[in-house]
Amino acid sequence: MAKARKFVYSFSAGKAEGRASMRELLGGKGAGLHEMTRIGVPVPPGFTITTEVCTHYYKRRRQYPKGLERDVMKALSRVEKIIGRRFGDPLNPLLVSVRSGARESMPGMMDTVLNLGLNDRTVQGLAAQMQNPRAAYDCYRRFVQMYGDVVLGLKPREKEERDPFEVILERKKKARRARFDTELGADDLKELVAEFKAEIKAKLGKEFPEEPEEQLWGAIGAVFGSWNNDRAIAYRQLYHIPHNWGTAVNVQTMVFGNMGERCATGVAFTRNPGNGEKRFYGEFLVNAQGEDVVAGVRTPRPIAELKEIMPGSYRKLEQTCGILEKHYKEMQDTEFTIENDRLWLLQTRAGKRTGFAAVRIAVDMVEERIISKEQALLRIEPDQLNQLLRPIFDQADKDRAAKEGRILARGLPAGPGAAAGRIVFHAEDAEAWKKRGERVILCRVETSPDDIRGMDAAQGILTARGGMTSHAALVARQMGKICVAGCEAVNIDYAGRKMHIDGSVLKEGDWLSVDGTTGEVIKGELKTLPSEVLQVLIGRTLEPQTSRVYRQFSRLMKWADRVRKIGIRTNTDQPDQARVAMAFGAEGIGLCRTEHMFFEGKRIDAVREMILAEDEAGRRRALKKLLPMQKEDFKGILEIMGSLPVTIRTLDPPLHEFLPKTEAEIVELARIMSIPIETLKNKVDVLHEFNPMLGHRGCRLAISYPEITEMQAQAIFEAACELRLEGKNPFPEVMIPLVSSRQELHAQREIVERAARDAMKRYGVRVRYLIGTMIELPRACLVADEIAQEAEFFSFGTNDLTQTCLGLSRDDAGKFLPSYVLHGILPEDPFVSIDRDGVGALMRLGVQKGRKVRRDLEIGICGEHGGDPKSVAFCHEIGLDYVSCSAYRVPIAKLAAAQAALRS
Amino acid sequence: MAKARKFVYSFSAGKAEGRASMRELLGGKGAGLHEMTRIGVPVPPGFTITTEVCTHYYKRRRQYPKGLERDVMKALSRVEKIIGRRFGDPLNPLLVSVRSGARESMPGMMDTVLNLGLNDRTVQGLAAQMQNPRAAYDCYRRFVQMYGDVVLGLKPREKEERDPFEVILERKKKARRARFDTELGADDLKELVAEFKAEIKAKLGKEFPEEPEEQLWGAIGAVFGSWNNDRAIAYRQLYHIPHNWGTAVNVQTMVFGNMGERCATGVAFTRNPGNGEKRFYGEFLVNAQGEDVVAGVRTPRPIAELKEIMPGSYRKLEQTCGILEKHYKEMQDTEFTIENDRLWLLQTRAGKRTGFAAVRIAVDMVEERIISKEQALLRIEPDQLNQLLRPIFDQADKDRAAKEGRILARGLPAGPGAAAGRIVFHAEDAEAWKKRGERVILCRVETSPDDIRGMDAAQGILTARGGMTSHAALVARQMGKICVAGCEAVNIDYAGRKMHIDGSVLKEGDWLSVDGTTGEVIKGELKTLPSEVLQVLIGRTLEPQTSRVYRQFSRLMKWADRVRKIGIRTNTDQPDQARVAMAFGAEGIGLCRTEHMFFEGKRIDAVREMILAEDEAGRRRALKKLLPMQKEDFKGILEIMGSLPVTIRTLDPPLHEFLPKTEAEIVELARIMSIPIETLKNKVDVLHEFNPMLGHRGCRLAISYPEITEMQAQAIFEAACELRLEGKNPFPEVMIPLVSSRQELHAQREIVERAARDAMKRYGVRVRYLIGTMIELPRACLVADEIAQEAEFFSFGTNDLTQTCLGLSRDDAGKFLPSYVLHGILPEDPFVSIDRDGVGALMRLGVQKGRKVRRDLEIGICGEHGGDPKSVAFCHEIGLDYVSCSAYRVPIAKLAAAQAALRS
Repeated sequence: MAKARKFVYSFSAGKAEGRASMRELLGGKGAGLHEMTRIGVPVPPGFTITTEVCTHYYKRRRQYPKGLERDVMKALSRVEKIIGRRFGDPLNPLLVSVRSGARESMPGMMDTVLNLGLNDRTVQGLAAQMQNPRAAYDCYRRFVQMYGDVVLGLKPREKEERDPFEVILERKKKARRARFDTELGADDLKELVAEFKAEIKAKLGKEFPEEPEEQLWGAIGAVFGSWNNDRAIAYRQLYHIPHNWGTAVNVQTMVFGNMGERCATGVAFTRNPGNGEKRFYGEFLVNAQGEDVVAGVRTPRPIAELKEIMPGSYRKLEQTCGILEKHYKEMQDTEFTIENDRLWLLQTRAGKRTGFAAVRIAVDMVEERIISKEQALLRIEPDQLNQLLRPIFDQADKDRAAKEGRILARGLPAGPGAAAGRIVFHAEDAEAWKKRGERVILCRVETSPDDIRGMDAAQGILTARGGMTSHAALVARQMGKICVAGCEAVNIDYAGRKMHIDGSVLKEGDWLSVDGTTGEVIKGELKTLPSEVLQVLIGRTLEPQTSRVYRQFSRLMKWADRVRKIGIRTNTDQPDQARVAMAFGAEGIGLCRTEHMFFEGKRIDAVREMILAEDEAGRRRALKKLLPMQKEDFKGILEIMGSLPVTIRTLDPPLHEFLPKTEAEIVELARIMSIPIETLKNKVDVLHEFNPMLGHRGCRLAISYPEITEMQAQAIFEAACELRLEGKNPFPEVMIPLVSSRQELHAQREIVERAARDAMKRYGVRVRYLIGTMIELPRACLVADEIAQEAEFFSFGTNDLTQTCLGLSRDDAGKFLPSYVLHGILPEDPFVSIDRDGVGALMRLGVQKGRKVRRDLEIGICGEHGGDPKSVAFCHEIGLDYVSCSAYRVPIAKLAAAQAALRS
Repeated sequence: MAKARKFVYSFSAGKAEGRASMRELLGGKGAGLHEMTRIGVPVPPGFTITTEVCTHYYKRRRQYPKGLERDVMKALSRVEKIIGRRFGDPLNPLLVSVRSGARESMPGMMDTVLNLGLNDRTVQGLAAQMQNPRAAYDCYRRFVQMYGDVVLGLKPREKEERDPFEVILERKKKARRARFDTELGADDLKELVAEFKAEIKAKLGKEFPEEPEEQLWGAIGAVFGSWNNDRAIAYRQLYHIPHNWGTAVNVQTMVFGNMGERCATGVAFTRNPGNGEKRFYGEFLVNAQGEDVVAGVRTPRPIAELKEIMPGSYRKLEQTCGILEKHYKEMQDTEFTIENDRLWLLQTRAGKRTGFAAVRIAVDMVEERIISKEQALLRIEPDQLNQLLRPIFDQADKDRAAKEGRILARGLPAGPGAAAGRIVFHAEDAEAWKKRGERVILCRVETSPDDIRGMDAAQGILTARGGMTSHAALVARQMGKICVAGCEAVNIDYAGRKMHIDGSVLKEGDWLSVDGTTGEVIKGELKTLPSEVLQVLIGRTLEPQTSRVYRQFSRLMKWADRVRKIGIRTNTDQPDQARVAMAFGAEGIGLCRTEHMFFEGKRIDAVREMILAEDEAGRRRALKKLLPMQKEDFKGILEIMGSLPVTIRTLDPPLHEFLPKTEAEIVELARIMSIPIETLKNKVDVLHEFNPMLGHRGCRLAISYPEITEMQAQAIFEAACELRLEGKNPFPEVMIPLVSSRQELHAQREIVERAARDAMKRYGVRVRYLIGTMIELPRACLVADEIAQEAEFFSFGTNDLTQTCLGLSRDDAGKFLPSYVLHGILPEDPFVSIDRDGVGALMRLGVQKGRKVRRDLEIGICGEHGGDPKSVAFCHEIGLDYVSCSAYRVPIAKLAAAQAALRS
């Protein structure tokens, strides 16, 4: 048999059997209680039943391990001795709270029972102890209600039904003409207790347990049981918390914040969790128990007011919290109760904070010499930096909208930030309205490459369909656009130029606000505030020295740059985005798509002329028109990036993406191009593909029509040569997409090399350049050794590699992928974070095979994953040279890269 | 410097420097000439310039290696000595032929020059030698014409232009009122020579070279040069012959079949290459040179007639060929010339033969104790067995059609065999017409699963779009249906119930014949003959003892069964196909799709009801209707297969495949189902996918709707239990498709196991069964070790694995894949033969990882590749337990498996 384990850990009066490092065994709350006790913080004595008991409980069909009962009773009598009260003693009863406490905080998901140990006899002892019968009966009423709900299970049976206890309470308050619970007297509360018990009897057919020991075991069982309630399971799935961790149970002497005006209860933060300011922060209620602060029945008061009411307790609290922050070297979030001017701490933990607060606290703590720069870098979730870069809604304005019921729906937070504008439904309208000075929100069922300019013109984008990696979301992130995607409540009627959202009808021109950080869609115009960091870096409308946010942000970035081992590039084909990325310190462009350029202005006409050409000569004529435009594009972007590498991908999407889809558009285009409608329709038909993702695209197009690569390479090298003549030092890296064999790359390489030689000869200059390939197909990874013979660099296209490795269409997976992640079939959305076991295994293989053949092979990643912190860590791990991400994720990638370096 | 190599190998009068095994160095023709000389067969003396010279020639910018000239002249003078004539001697000139000869025969692709060494002086010596001035001038005329074309390059400049030499020749024949060349006299021929030379001078501006040595080097250069002419390159690409092999050049004393009536030239086979009969076979022309036999100007005579005309030479020829067959232990295809009653052999090689002949010759040779059974198995291309199983057109009937211009077009030979029937354009029509006793050819732009029953009802299928692995081709092969796919000349007008093919208009009801072996589409009704093997095995209309073809086929199969190491199963869900496969000796079903069953009869209504159901309860109601039908299906197929394993795959295709697509069909279905048209349209819209191949299908559907798997598993196990009660011993293997993670399989496994337990409990019997998965995604291969923990078997779905590994849609790749294969970017169509470097590497990984976890893991393949000989060899190599293929490919797979075992 297994060696006898210790199931129960006691803490009391400066002595504790546990400590902070025993979080796995005692849970977060338990470890905190033990540690606080250990360092002399006033904590009501009690004990913790370990998470191992929970694990045992579930493994053995809800049986407790042998000896648990004895250990709990021993621990309880130790508490009785210290407190000098006895559990169940009618004269001097000990009351306890029974609370859950998992390794990771799961706020509100599991159960708690307070005031346990009360019955019709002990309540009188409590009244005597308290010298306050009303307070005693208030505790009793709360206990019966909580126990009846949590342990006995008297809950509303239907969604619409009201809580049966609340119904009785309301009735009583009405009868007594009381607005608040506090206005009910001891007798009222006593009656309520009797009525609650009667209701339990009536509804459940069982008596309320009067025996405190029975109550205790009931509560312990309920807390363990709540580990597997639906809410808790769903929460763990959402936050990737393993189901086998289990919760601990904390049994602790009750202290009372509800014994009168010298009592209070509240929460306190050592710093402001909203903005990070180093100022004691929190809120409290006088004469209340903890649950009242959360429930929102009464509005809590700011902690500063406590100073005036109970200056002694306030001083003690502030001091204690200071001790805790210094001890943990981290901003603390505490729960406290003041019982007749005596302060008790009931919980301490690292406080959750906004991105703003995270940066400020980390940098401040370095300056205060509490933590090192490395620790500071590890303290911030990289994604939180987003908040420092996005415009935000004025919170007061938003609260008002919520109150007025104007928050209509919630979609996916696809492009963080806040935007307000007038509704338009078509990309062209977005452009036209913008021209006349309107701010617009572009609302579409979904977006396509055709909509790019309209998306660019819009303040924000709202789509009814598509996931976090849909076209809209992808482009939005790349553009740094605010976007709410896949908001299924939205029902667009293009013809009627209106949409329905959950009963509301919104017409073209109506004001709408979208919050891409939360996914909320709000009727009307909310006020937005721009990000300070951007005002300094990009807008130059704010001086660095006047923005603390900027100063702290840039210090953090400097620390990250010093630590990280992996380079950061950006994905962009727009000069203004390239400038943003440069401002953020990007070290090159990792993916410059050339097809977006094809949609600008008159270019699409030439592109279409090329597609519709009947032979190579016709295609060449059309390509000749595109050449000078592409050359100017490349010149622009190469110039901005100075001598940094610019990875330019040759044409990738299937040709049908450039042709119109609807009947009307086809008719119009046929007219413009002076060709028969049937001819055009036929071409559209011929180009139609069943699975365009796996179709005639990437280098396959260029193998069929080498003249396209020829033109693009010519444009790149003429641009580079002209810059060279101007004394610049451009560094293009030409990247061939969708390569699956050495032969493909070889054929394309020859074309590009010829173009480079020709241009350099004509201009009489030399230009640095590399030729390489996207690695975005499983086969490319499997034959990477062969491909590396033709490639000077690899860039993992993890979007497509994920699609092919998992056989999962990004555009279609929205229907089932969320439930896959929810049910743990996949640990995470593989389009958000690299699937290490599948896609990651292919990447490792690709790196290993590629470097075997070419030791100095430059390897990066240009998929969307390049901006995902976990994926950045993986890229660091497998030894990539750089990650490339959208401009606005460069800071995030930098921080993630620094963290990866620190952790490895 | 490299060691001096031998560039020239001589052969003459029983002595040869080369031999049969030196094929790589001397080419096929050269090796044959040397070997024949060596064993005493009369071969005109000569020498071979090696393939290495050719390789050198191309590596060094068309320079010959040092010393070649000297070696050639030495070899030439050795010939002069033996023959007793001198090259360029005006009195007694030696004439030579200069011929190409690559390692693999490339018939007609490269150049040849005959009668070389003639000029205005030597022709007179030749006339004296021959004692026949006309014959001498005939040679001269031929030489100038051939040399002018091949070496000097006087060819028609445009496609439409006629050969300039032929124009002059025709003019001369007209002037002399001659029908055949043979009617022209010596003087006429002399004039022609002069006119040819003048034409060369006029068109090319150069003199015809009179100097024999100059002629010789010109011809050698031309032969080497012809290795890289467009035709030869295209041919090598088509037949996967490496471009760096090079050709040899054979220079050989001319012998003359055109010196008069005691002269002849022809080809002879040791056995009949058409049917394999052991009878001397061939054809010849009297007073002719070899080119005349091929050119088809005069019709050659059957070899038997030679016996009457030149009995001595005939005897000698038959005897010589007998010696060659015995020597090579293989049917020989020879070229011979008789010069004044003296026989000369000019070539010998293994003869090409039909499938029928291949089987007969191999089996006969075993009986004749010429070769072993193992050698016999290796002699037959597995694919050739196809010919023994398919109905064929009556050849005379087809020749007539060709003459009448009724062969309208050629598509892809997607389903071998011959079919004739009346044209219909809709699957329903095919069914209806069949019911009234008509034979029909179903003509579609492309086919879909909806068309299955119509395809089954048709004699043959013709599609305008789609490749060798399109839906039509796939189903056709599985059904053993005759099919011509992707015939782009076909232009269907569904509304007008007619189609245009290359100018002809064919209406519904017109007769059409399609040859799925050649891809030909023929107007009218051709007569078909059924395959004897099938008449014996399936039709039971022929007794085994009366069919030699059947007897030899079945002997071969027995030998194959004894040798092969890998099992053979079949892919089918139809009882009649299962019976065919059983007749062919299949050892189980490797893939029984369950969705085809969904289309039969009224089932589709229940399927659609399930799809359109709004909740689980609704789906369950519809599934309940399907249950008894699926159960009957499974019972049928399990019963036929006895105790052999039947791998049943749960539902795989995306649900939208079961819904109508066109407006009209939607309206009709909405009426049938009594639901609003908009609701149905909406559902169709919601289910639409951008990349259905990568969408909501396979086990993803079953994860979303577990009740589908529940119903299918229930049907399987109730069927099995009922058979068990009848004393049978069914063996279902339940296969979950599109698995990419252990968790998916785990979830599905639980459902299947529960259904199995429930059924067995209810029926009170035990049933053998396995639960396993398709391995058809790269990720599944990468995490095969994890998946194997839940799987008792793996079955590689190489169709989808190829699509995902290469990022290549089978349905869309037709646009570029052929050119990929043609240009050597991919060695072969990866949908036909497993891509070893990519897909194969994943398979190896999957096998290795799977067996690491579960040593007795059963592993097979059920993709289309299971019937491809090269892929079968690969499966043998990586240690699979079985391959599974369509019923009609079972014999092919067996032979391929035997060959793989013999070769390893």
